[in-house]
Amino acid sequence: MRKIEGIAASTGIAIAKAYELKAPELTFENVTIDNPDKETERLDEALKISKQELEKIKEHTKNEIGDEHAEIFSAHLLVLSDPELIKPMKDKINTDKVNAEAALDEVANMFIDMFKNMDNEYMRERAADIQDVTKRVMAHLLGVNFPDPALIDEQVVVIANDLTPSDTAQLNREFVKGFATDIGGRTSHSAIMARSLEIPAVVGTKNITTSVSKDDIIIVDGMEGIVIINPSDEEIESYRKKQESFAEQQQEWAKLKDEPTFTSDGEQVELAANIGTPADVEGVLNNGGEGIGLYRTEFLYMGKSELPTEEEQYEAYTSVLEQMGDKPVVVRTLDVGGDKELSYLDLPKELNPFLGFRAIRFCLENEHVFRPQLRALLRASVHGNLKIMFPMIATLEEFRKAKALLLDEKEALLAEGVKVSEDIEVGIMVEIPSTAVIARQFAKEVDFFSIGTNDLIQYTMAADRMNQQVSYLYQPYNPAILNLIHTVIEAAHKEGKWVGMCGEMAGDSIAIPILLGLGLDEFSMSATSILPARTQILNLSKKEMTSFKEQLLSMGTAEEVVAFVKEKTE
Amino acid sequence: MRKIEGIAASTGIAIAKAYELKAPELTFENVTIDNPDKETERLDEALKISKQELEKIKEHTKNEIGDEHAEIFSAHLLVLSDPELIKPMKDKINTDKVNAEAALDEVANMFIDMFKNMDNEYMRERAADIQDVTKRVMAHLLGVNFPDPALIDEQVVVIANDLTPSDTAQLNREFVKGFATDIGGRTSHSAIMARSLEIPAVVGTKNITTSVSKDDIIIVDGMEGIVIINPSDEEIESYRKKQESFAEQQQEWAKLKDEPTFTSDGEQVELAANIGTPADVEGVLNNGGEGIGLYRTEFLYMGKSELPTEEEQYEAYTSVLEQMGDKPVVVRTLDVGGDKELSYLDLPKELNPFLGFRAIRFCLENEHVFRPQLRALLRASVHGNLKIMFPMIATLEEFRKAKALLLDEKEALLAEGVKVSEDIEVGIMVEIPSTAVIARQFAKEVDFFSIGTNDLIQYTMAADRMNQQVSYLYQPYNPAILNLIHTVIEAAHKEGKWVGMCGEMAGDSIAIPILLGLGLDEFSMSATSILPARTQILNLSKKEMTSFKEQLLSMGTAEEVVAFVKEKTE
Repeated sequence: MRKIEGIAASTGIAIAKAYELKAPELTFENVTIDNPDKETERLDEALKISKQELEKIKEHTKNEIGDEHAEIFSAHLLVLSDPELIKPMKDKINTDKVNAEAALDEVANMFIDMFKNMDNEYMRERAADIQDVTKRVMAHLLGVNFPDPALIDEQVVVIANDLTPSDTAQLNREFVKGFATDIGGRTSHSAIMARSLEIPAVVGTKNITTSVSKDDIIIVDGMEGIVIINPSDEEIESYRKKQESFAEQQQEWAKLKDEPTFTSDGEQVELAANIGTPADVEGVLNNGGEGIGLYRTEFLYMGKSELPTEEEQYEAYTSVLEQMGDKPVVVRTLDVGGDKELSYLDLPKELNPFLGFRAIRFCLENEHVFRPQLRALLRASVHGNLKIMFPMIATLEEFRKAKALLLDEKEALLAEGVKVSEDIEVGIMVEIPSTAVIARQFAKEVDFFSIGTNDLIQYTMAADRMNQQVSYLYQPYNPAILNLIHTVIEAAHKEGKWVGMCGEMAGDSIAIPILLGLGLDEFSMSATSILPARTQILNLSKKEMTSFKEQLLSMGTAEEVVAFVKEKTE
Repeated sequence: MRKIEGIAASTGIAIAKAYELKAPELTFENVTIDNPDKETERLDEALKISKQELEKIKEHTKNEIGDEHAEIFSAHLLVLSDPELIKPMKDKINTDKVNAEAALDEVANMFIDMFKNMDNEYMRERAADIQDVTKRVMAHLLGVNFPDPALIDEQVVVIANDLTPSDTAQLNREFVKGFATDIGGRTSHSAIMARSLEIPAVVGTKNITTSVSKDDIIIVDGMEGIVIINPSDEEIESYRKKQESFAEQQQEWAKLKDEPTFTSDGEQVELAANIGTPADVEGVLNNGGEGIGLYRTEFLYMGKSELPTEEEQYEAYTSVLEQMGDKPVVVRTLDVGGDKELSYLDLPKELNPFLGFRAIRFCLENEHVFRPQLRALLRASVHGNLKIMFPMIATLEEFRKAKALLLDEKEALLAEGVKVSEDIEVGIMVEIPSTAVIARQFAKEVDFFSIGTNDLIQYTMAADRMNQQVSYLYQPYNPAILNLIHTVIEAAHKEGKWVGMCGEMAGDSIAIPILLGLGLDEFSMSATSILPARTQILNLSKKEMTSFKEQLLSMGTAEEVVAFVKEKTE
């Protein structure tokens, strides 16, 4: 038995066998053979299994995420069937009398080197395809397991260094009961995805991958941020009870699913959800979401080899809007750059990407990327209650330029005879300190604000939220952050505008009473946080929370704030 | 004739021959020789010239910058006299019958590789020394020029891709009349140094190094940010006139050298200077500085192979304090990390260094670095009017911790019987948005604030000030920046504390009227900006500027602010 602490990333308890998601060891010996037919057969067999796996992964991706994301696997399948690649391998086996591993390796590397050195993005993508596929075939030749989330077909806890967006997208909720990773924090992509998929998760354990062995039994406690390796029977028993009582609590919460959100003194607020794909909407509705406070559109652009078409985007936006009915859906336009790279966009390498050319900065300079998204949104607007939000706005000029492009596309669509809703609210993310500071000026021009606390905190404290050495400065309760939030809400209300929050803070039980007191209108969070938040708010008096406002805003440290809130809401 | 535009980095006009400061081409042919004695002689001759040069550079460095910085050249000289390095080269010439270039190259590389791969910082430094020295010897063997700023002995304009801190430190004002670089901005190190050395400079020209050839005549116009290559006689004539009228203006300004700084309506402010080394103080006094608003102590730590001793620091601080008499000297404690690396400190590689482990964050975790600096400052405090300032303070806790360490060292010194001034003010840089936002809370605990606009702007706008693609967001006049400055000044004055500014903005002619109106007490700038600023302030009414305050703070964009100020101060 071994207990490892990490960061509680997604609530719930999982108990299952470990599934290690890590790159297999693929070293081989270069051997001279005397039975080329046997080697050719071995190669054919490895190719066959690889193709079957890829078909399965492709199918899974198509169903779970969408056609466009399955494309990459079609490309991989093409590689495996390409005679120009396979024939030289077999020739090599026959003439050079080498084993299948050596033939595969040599021929694949020749093509990879050739394509890589071409000054052509398409060919470089092909090199990457061949590299990916070769690894899979090599694994089967060597008889080692080539782990892939889409291939999991029994109940497991996934153990990985980190989960990439495409890994997480492949996770099948039916079999993957939880996961634990070495790196990441509460706001890292894998954590956000875990909450969206409602899979218990612990991240940032530092050394889970080196601590777990094949077939270990794992408990993931996503409430406390603890992972237990090979627990005792008593422990399993005790965690099964915890699991049950969590399930009971969920049933309790579920009674509030279709209720509005009122404070104990009768003030209403809106509890909305953050989503990444149309498939997430089901979870939002099941968890009593009153709207979507943040639809991150980056997903449409990721794991692909080219930009999504206007049509693909239109379909995704329409799907979300239709599923949500008349409930509000706030769609954030493309927030790329920073830590989110897209290979086909050729974004610059930067010394400080978080302070770089990203989101609206990139979109305003790349209208060929931005305009199709705006058109798709405008076209979809007739299918529901759409609100459009621009990310990373630092100056009024940026907002004005972005809005002008939107109006330009609207006019063009109307001229083409395409219907566009007349009631689309246009707002901005408040995630850059400058925008919070002069919210008064912005409030006159935007329809709403949504405070993005993850970035707002990192910029206000000048501390990279991914950098462990300065993680002590990622302080949601720092009075400076509370003062900025206060400035934004006050400015908006003065102009009759509403303010949401779509950062992690909105679903946090310490932050909720503070935000109620500051007057926040909409709280957007992971779907699974909605019902606990509603339960908490039912028991809070807005009047009382408001009475603490001045005191909180004058405090010196985050520590004082937390102690005060705990005392007052106990 | 060719005109190239860049960024005006340091005022004045220079007209002189180009001196290209760039790495020479050092390729050589591997030749079999039949006269080993001649090759040995060639090697000895190249070693001799290299030694003479290094002696000259060492001497120059010692006089201009200080003993401790000259050390590195002593290390280089040791390398050139080391028989363990030189003998194998001569052996190689004699036994292998190769030319001196090949022998030098092969033996040097053997040692470099050996030392580099040792897990020992000291040996890696030695590898770097051998590499540096070998290049110089190779250049002399090949008969090519090995440019070095310290070797310049005629009037020139230096042309370089960029100037490193050690390059700039070597520049001899007598001969270097100006410089122009490919990269850099107004706040880059080379620009700050140019102003401190009072050398006209244009930076960020993008392609000056590829546009200039040997012996070209260059005009550097540090007022307009223009470089002219091979000007016509008429142009030279016209620039000579501009040079004269600038000199006349300087004489005009000089009359104000010993005057205090008053506005037209009789309000006094303080004009101070930013410095990097004790040698800069002379320029401050010659330019009428009423104090030092920022003494950057990083210089003591740079271009060395180990930490400066407490004694070295004590001497430097004492020298500055004594030269300044009873005028205030604000010393900033070590601001390392971010874009400032020190090889011997083994700072982490970070994804976003500007949001990383730097300055006070580093110092609080590395007391063995921080405490000796605090002790040196405390000991020096009896020699003048010392104020201590901590950089990159983001939270009250950080300030409290830093101050506690200072008091701890003070107590220790007093216990040892060492005298320490009882009047040392302890303040902080305000360069992180959080600190500006809750300046009210900080003002109760600090003795003063100094606003560091370079960083404050980059964090508030979330835009790396070194990144060209987001340079449009580096907006000193953005109303958000003005509002933060206002918040800080108001908070400080309420508690009877004073506020300085030591960013580039403090010396800017558009900013000065605004800052006067906001109530700034101390303006700290490049020494050469002080007299023009004093002249400008003499003609401004503080009352009038204050009357514009509310209007300025409510504006939407930087553009509006600039237009307004220009109109009102015309």
